[in-house]
Amino acid sequence: MAAIREGENDGMGVSLKDLSKKLEDFAKARDWEKYHTPRNLLLAMVGEVGELSEIFQWKGEVEKGLESWEESEKEHLGEELSDVLLYLIRLADICGIDLGHAALNKILKNAIKYPPISL
Amino acid sequence: MAAIREGENDGMGVSLKDLSKKLEDFAKARDWEKYHTPRNLLLAMVGEVGELSEIFQWKGEVEKGLESWEESEKEHLGEELSDVLLYLIRLADICGIDLGHAALNKILKNAIKYPPISL
Amino acid sequence: MAAIREGENDGMGVSLKDLSKKLEDFAKARDWEKYHTPRNLLLAMVGEVGELSEIFQWKGEVEKGLESWEESEKEHLGEELSDVLLYLIRLADICGIDLGHAALNKILKNAIKYPPISL
Amino acid sequence: MAAIREGENDGMGVSLKDLSKKLEDFAKARDWEKYHTPRNLLLAMVGEVGELSEIFQWKGEVEKGLESWEESEKEHLGEELSDVLLYLIRLADICGIDLGHAALNKILKNAIKYPPISL
Repeated sequence: MAAIREGENDGMGVSLKDLSKKLEDFAKARDWEKYHTPRNLLLAMVGEVGELSEIFQWKGEVEKGLESWEESEKEHLGEELSDVLLYLIRLADICGIDLGHAALNKILKNAIKYPPISL
Repeated sequence: MAAIREGENDGMGVSLKDLSKKLEDFAKARDWEKYHTPRNLLLAMVGEVGELSEIFQWKGEVEKGLESWEESEKEHLGEELSDVLLYLIRLADICGIDLGHAALNKILKNAIKYPPISL
Repeated sequence: MAAIREGENDGMGVSLKDLSKKLEDFAKARDWEKYHTPRNLLLAMVGEVGELSEIFQWKGEVEKGLESWEESEKEHLGEELSDVLLYLIRLADICGIDLGHAALNKILKNAIKYPPISL
Repeated sequence: MAAIREGENDGMGVSLKDLSKKLEDFAKARDWEKYHTPRNLLLAMVGEVGELSEIFQWKGEVEKGLESWEESEKEHLGEELSDVLLYLIRLADICGIDLGHAALNKILKNAIKYPPISL
């Protein structure tokens, strides 16, 4: 995998395409492409959804912003959210789905299905 | 929700930040923010992971690229992948996690944990 | 599938073995055994876990006993819980796992791992 | 938790009611009842579904009976299947659902929805 270039690690500005490309390079550099079949990736993603759920399982309702959480716990949460995201992007890619395009379309479809409240 | 502007609907080039902002606007315009608590969003995401799994459940192993799938089936797949993505992004946002930053960090961490094969 | 005999439909008294046998008969009578591979059943179960989660997704915390729920909603819940259970039992069976035996062993193992509070 | 009595540990013959009672005693003896709310248990179950999926994630399609699996791997599988089962039973119990009754009814409902093939 190429080194992350300066200015590239800009968090939320990162595109789905950037992440997809990084994951492809990552798999190629490790000869992991043979494992990346659709159902393998789907089950790997379900595994990560499980780890994400474990963070929330005994907490009862949790407040927005997680102000009361330890920093280390929020970092762990960030990692598990990322694991789900990365397998999801890779799954879409392996299935030949343009996830960004699909997501934008889904938002438009939802906007028609659920019209905004008129004020 | 503001109309999608020309050039904006460019698929994979879309950033996590763009999607996060759209989802926030979407929720505000419908007075849905009260429902968007961390565990509500997590369970909603698990629901969508279930719908995604249903697409693959009786198929046995599935080939990369899904060449043999009907176009309508691939469109349905794109929608379910999107639903998972959108709840995941919204969950991260509500938890105060910069998902793009976390994802880039996770890739770097994985690169150290699993060094590439030397040729 | 043979008709349910009198006295058999005794709810919680039903054994895992009884359910496993019914599911096997059910699949045979419909020529569905070919679909019941381990990963197909696992993904079908994940699908049902999704439907179960959807029941709870927008509710915030829910009280024990669900006193405030409509009867129809509790019935729906019973169906989704059952769907998860039935695929889980079938998955164990197809994998050659004695689920009842494994569950009793797991309880014993947990009892050693987490000793009871002394009074 | 009362000691398992002779003849009781008979694997698949175990009833859902037996397991439900053991889990209730287990929670009481550890003062864990306060954690056993519906959504906590649901998320704990999703966590275990994730661990179950991890066992299958990189394997491609898996043959029935798992003849080629190591004994230790099958034991691990039995534990994860059990973890899902135990949280599912406990969730049903806390929600006031008679899971055995619901499961038998669901089989009957499915039998009507999907009539057996006539020979």
